[in-house]
Order: sequence, then C-alpha cells, then structure tokens
Amino acid sequence: MEAGMEELKAKGRAAKAAAHRMAYLPSEVKNQALRNIAADLLTRKDEILAANEIDYKEAEASGMNAAMLDRLMLSSDRIEAIAGDVLTVAALPDPVGEVFDMRTLPNGLLIGRKRVPLGVIGTVYESRPNVTVDISVLCLKSGNAIILRGGREAFHSSSVLAAVVREACYRGGIPEGAVQFIESTDRALVNQMLKMRDVIDLLIPRGSAGLIQFVYENATMPVVAGGIGVCHTYVDRTADVADAVAIAYNAKVQRPTVCNALDTLLVHADIAPQYLPRIAADWAKAGVAIHSDERALAILKSEPSLKLVPASEEDWGKEFLALVAAVKMVDSLDEALAHIERYGSGHSEAIVTGEYNAAMRFLNEVDAACVYVNASTRFTDGSQFGLGAEVGISTQKMHARGPLGLRELTSYKWIIYGSGQVRP
Amino acid sequence: MEAGMEELKAKGRAAKAAAHRMAYLPSEVKNQALRNIAADLLTRKDEILAANEIDYKEAEASGMNAAMLDRLMLSSDRIEAIAGDVLTVAALPDPVGEVFDMRTLPNGLLIGRKRVPLGVIGTVYESRPNVTVDISVLCLKSGNAIILRGGREAFHSSSVLAAVVREACYRGGIPEGAVQFIESTDRALVNQMLKMRDVIDLLIPRGSAGLIQFVYENATMPVVAGGIGVCHTYVDRTADVADAVAIAYNAKVQRPTVCNALDTLLVHADIAPQYLPRIAADWAKAGVAIHSDERALAILKSEPSLKLVPASEEDWGKEFLALVAAVKMVDSLDEALAHIERYGSGHSEAIVTGEYNAAMRFLNEVDAACVYVNASTRFTDGSQFGLGAEVGISTQKMHARGPLGLRELTSYKWIIYGSGQVRP
Repeated sequence: MEAGMEELKAKGRAAKAAAHRMAYLPSEVKNQALRNIAADLLTRKDEILAANEIDYKEAEASGMNAAMLDRLMLSSDRIEAIAGDVLTVAALPDPVGEVFDMRTLPNGLLIGRKRVPLGVIGTVYESRPNVTVDISVLCLKSGNAIILRGGREAFHSSSVLAAVVREACYRGGIPEGAVQFIESTDRALVNQMLKMRDVIDLLIPRGSAGLIQFVYENATMPVVAGGIGVCHTYVDRTADVADAVAIAYNAKVQRPTVCNALDTLLVHADIAPQYLPRIAADWAKAGVAIHSDERALAILKSEPSLKLVPASEEDWGKEFLALVAAVKMVDSLDEALAHIERYGSGHSEAIVTGEYNAAMRFLNEVDAACVYVNASTRFTDGSQFGLGAEVGISTQKMHARGPLGLRELTSYKWIIYGSGQVRP
Repeated sequence: MEAGMEELKAKGRAAKAAAHRMAYLPSEVKNQALRNIAADLLTRKDEILAANEIDYKEAEASGMNAAMLDRLMLSSDRIEAIAGDVLTVAALPDPVGEVFDMRTLPNGLLIGRKRVPLGVIGTVYESRPNVTVDISVLCLKSGNAIILRGGREAFHSSSVLAAVVREACYRGGIPEGAVQFIESTDRALVNQMLKMRDVIDLLIPRGSAGLIQFVYENATMPVVAGGIGVCHTYVDRTADVADAVAIAYNAKVQRPTVCNALDTLLVHADIAPQYLPRIAADWAKAGVAIHSDERALAILKSEPSLKLVPASEEDWGKEFLALVAAVKMVDSLDEALAHIERYGSGHSEAIVTGEYNAAMRFLNEVDAACVYVNASTRFTDGSQFGLGAEVGISTQKMHARGPLGLRELTSYKWIIYGSGQVRP
C-alpha cells in the first residue's frame, strides 16, 4: 500500500508537469490525438474485448445483477460507438484560447480574458468502462491532464482502455504523463487521491449516489458532483392536455433510470379531472406505478388498471430512478412553485402552460440548473443542449451549472497588453 | 453560546428566505436601496463616528499598531468616500438577468443561459469597518443575501454600519432578512458559520493571511480565497530600460502593502548591467531594500547608497508586503518562466520586453490570474480593470479568476422555451 501511495504521488507529479505543457498545445495536436484514440479503439478491439470478458465473467460469477452486467459489457458495436463519440469530440471547437471581454481601457491598456485549461482533472468512477475513454477525451480536448481511477468490477477493461488512450494520444503529440491510470483497486488510494489538492484541480466522481456522496464529503479540492435529480413537471390550469400528456410521459418513461427523468407530477386542480386519467392510462401501459396524494387519488381510484398507491411524505423529493411517479394536485402556480422550492434538487423543472405570465414566472422563480416551459426535462444533457458532449450535470451554482461540456472544463486568465503603463 | 448558535441558524434561515426573493428583484429596487444606503451614511455620520471612536479608543488602549489603527479609523471624509463608492456601484449595470448563448436548436427549442445570483454570501472580515458596506452593496446589487461577521476590533463601527445598510436597503424594497450581521465576537460562531453549507453558497474571507488560511481549511462551502500574491516582473533582454525602470518602480513602491505589488524582479543577464543600477538607485530613494542573488549583487555592490543584502532561498516565492524586493539574474526567458512557475502564486506576473515572440510566449505560458506585457502588476484590481468594484482577487481557477466584480458574484441557469418537445 505504501508503494501504491508513492506511485500515486509520482503519477500526480507527472500529470501536473504534463498539464503545464498541455495548456498551450495547438488544437490540431489534440484533435490528431483524439483521432488516433478512435482508430486504436478499432484496431485493438480484440484485446479490449478479451479484457472485458475477464471482468464480465468475474462479475457474473460474483452474482452481479443483470443491469450492472449490461453496463459493464463491451461488444464490437459498443466499441465502435465509443470510437464514433471520440471523433465527434475531435470535431468540436477547441474551447482553449478563446478570448472574450477584450477591450481597450482609457489608459491604453488592452485587456481581456483568455480561456485556459483547469490543469489536472481527477475522476473516480465505477463499473462503466467507457467512462475511461469518454472523460479522457473531453479532458484532453480541453487541454487538461487526467488521473483516472476506475472501479474494481471493470478493472481489466479500464486498464486496457487507458493503455489504448495513453499510447494513441502520446503518439499524436500529447505530452507524456497527461493520462494517468491508477493500476490498483485499493480503496485507500481513493482517499489519498482526494487529499491531493496541490495536484488535482477538479474532481469528477461518476457512479452511484454513494460514491458521489463519499467524494463530495472527503475531497479537499473542488468537486463537480451532480447526478442527483429530483425533477418536477407542473401541469398548469391552461396547459394543452395532449402536450402535457406527451411531455410527462416522455419525462417519466423514455429513460427512467437517469437523473433528468420525472419524479413528481404536479397538476393544477382545474385541469386534473381531464388530465390525470389520460396521463395515468398512458403511464399504466408503460408500467409506471403512481404514488398519489389524496385529491389525485379521488380522481384516479376508479381506474382499476392503474398501479396506484397513496403517497407518503417520503415520496415528495424522492429520486425514483424507476417507473414510479409521485403525483400531487395543487391549487395554484404559487403552490407548485413552493413545492418545487421545498423538494426540488435544483436539477431540471418544467411547466406545461398556455399562459404567458405563468411561463415567465416559472422561468424566473424556479431556482434550478435547467428550467423548461412546454418541454420534457429529459433534454437536460450536453449533447441535447448542443454542447457536443458532457462530463456530467452540475446542480451546484459555482463555476458551472447544468450540463458540463468542454468549455466548463476550462478557466480563464486575464491578459493585458501594455506600452509602459504604471498605476497613478 | 448555545443561544448564539440558535440565533446564527435563525439568521441563516432568514437570509436564505430573503435570497429566494432577491433573485428576481427589479434592478431599480436594488439601485434605490443602494442610493438609500449612500444617503443614510451621510445623515447618520455622527452616530457612525461615535461608534468608531469607541472602537478606536479601545484599540489604542490595547496597544494596536499605527497601521492597524489607521485601517480601523473612520472620519467624515472617509465616510463620504464610502458613500461615493456606494453610488458608483448603484450606477453599474445589473449583472442579474443577463441572457447569453441563446439560440434555437434544430428541434425548435429556444435555449440559453440567464445570469442569476449565487444565493447567500457569507463574509468573515477583520478590522476594516468599511468592508461591512463595500461587501454588502456588491452582494445586494448582484441579488445576493449576505451574512456579515466582522472582527472584534471594529465591532461597534461594523455594528452601526450594518444597521445603516439594513435599514436603508429594506426601506428601498430589499426583502427583510437579506442583510444579517452577527452581533457577537464569539469565535465559535465563525466555526459554526463555516459549517453552514446548506445556507451559505459562497464564503469570502477578508483580512490577514491567517484568517484566510483558517477559512480555506475549515469552510465546508466554496471559498473565494485570494489575497496572496507573489508577483514577478521579468525584464527581458530587449526591454526598454526607461519603461522597465518605471514599471518595476511602480509595481514595488506605489503601494507596497498589497497583493499585486512586486516581490521578485527577474532581470536578463544581457540587460542587467545597464538596468540594475538604475532601478536600484530609484528604489533606494524610495527606501526599498534589495535581497539580491550573487550575480546581481556583483553589479550592485559598488553602490554604497543601496540597502542591499544577499538573497537566501526563502526570498524566492515570498510575499514581502513591504518595501523589500528580491532580485535575480536569469540567462533566458525560459529560465524566467521556470522561476515563475516554481515560485509564483498565480496572481499577477509581468514581462517588460521589446520582442514580440517573448511577449507572446510569456502571455501563453505563464499560468496566473493576470499576465502583463509592458505594464505594472499594480493594475490587478476590479476598478482598474473596468469592473467597477471588487470583492477580492481570486487566485483559484474554478468559478472566477482575478478580480471578482459583480458578474463573478452570480451563477446562471439554463432557460428553455419549448412548444411541446419530447426527447426521441
């Protein structure tokens, strides 16, 4: 373990040294490195699949459930898809070097801000081996060095993928040391990593709520910890019923296991008699269970086909990550806003309404990363938002909020062009 | 003390409730509140001066040094200057509500980012009572609620100033509760405040390096902790000698006690024989002591008027905050860059050069909040940079870097205008 600690420190120093040179690397070098990674993923496919088979068999033997096994599994198609995503990132504009707010001051100083990489980004993740490639290419493209610490379950797969990334990108001109992979599943090394504030500028945990919470509580450096989304859709008095059915259906059913899926449906009392039976019937066909407050229950209880139970206090503010929705009737927009303020996690919130003032109030007053009018909260995603890709979704207010794309992996420096100016 | 803790929690809840309403307050309400503060500072001047006299006499009796007594002291002129600064902030553009990156996606969603306040900002400060007003008005203008915890030495002054701010801004329409002042100098309350992550979105320590370090180590919420500046000026081989003398003189002498003052002067060996005697002579007239490396010493030692001592290893990377400068000769731009990378604090760094490529390399390769060509590092300041005012200078890379003005006290939310879109 001591040896592991020393090795981790050495990796940290190497990453930091590389990061300094990464900061002013031409875009074309970074893009070529990414194209090399995409190419090598395909040429080294058999090696990757063989490593993944070891992980998969071990996980299967240890009794891992089917959903987690599916996340762990790589296939020829999946590797091709990962390589395709790498090429997409290679084609995105380089955020580094962008100059903004440039202007000449009255004393003649030309001053502005120039986007620069953050430095070294650490990531701690679990069973999805593709995270190794996804996070690496986003960090490299944005000029950052990276320290990867993958989960035990995907160790062989992540290890080979990290080697592919490393070799391909160094061949393309990325400074050696820029991609570090921790070749150990020793949990103590994670604790050590979370203390390396002098080396790691930002830590991104990816995985279960437990992992994210652990990192958030113990990291000494800034952490971008999103991942928890308690999302509401409020169907206002004047909503278009068909739109409101389609939006709530999509928000709950299209991919229920992710953070931007609907958790609680709030329905104005005036529209509830027309609206609730329709969304409930559609949800029932998709297998959605409804945890309903008393008033909504009074409307829905005559429908025997529904999976309907009375809601308890714990249902409000709960992230279900499953085909379960809490439903509550409210008497006003104000009551909906108050419910969201109390129970929301600041991720994604939507109103469906036909009334202009209700839409404007909702947009202004809801304090969340993403606030929608007449659309599904499922759009909260870097590629859906046109950022090309994302490393995660931030529910914090500092630095960046919502989907984190390439630009959000950068900082800036002030650059000042003078001609002998001194301060009077 | 238990009562104090309960009171602090109640103040936190009140600030949070007010912050929610602050977020969508019209600019004119905030500006009127600021104008009220400026007016009341003048009409209640006698009351403020009387409170300040109590603090001053107590501090004098306790043996406080002259520099600190000067920071503590208010006068009629100083109060008028503070009121003037408040009016300046009132006249600045409101950062809240600014919409950027707005565009229509192929699916018809209109999406963009809208600037919003951070929420509740906490500040822990020491003996300068004007911080009470300065930070309050910047936070109010940017739509944030504030929890103020002033130092023991300025307790009576800060207490009255907080009352003036509070009463004046509530009269102008700021929600009650938005300005909280901790009416106790109990140190345990600071510890408690640093744990209130659920309430305080950002903590800004203002004062000594010891206070800043304490807050940085113990705060559970994000901290903007700048304040430490180890600043270099590098005089390159091709520098204009007169410009280089004026710039290094200004950077060291104009206000030596602040973070953007020069600490180490690096001089290229080719220009050192012409340059060093001239800057040393000018510095000597201003009383600057020089801690010199051996090679610069060889040039300067024949000048008996200089306060000259050999530099030791501790001089490199030291923030002097006084009329002391370290001086080192280097043989190349690369050696200067390596020295700055090793010893700089990432605050403000300058090159004086006549060579285009040297200027470009310095701007690109130095990793600091503010990088200058041919100008004094003393310009690193919110009002000098045209931000109108500042709450501090960040040497961190996350969120904001360099002077923190009104915009840097905000976050953003994504706003999405749909017409029934669902995710395919």
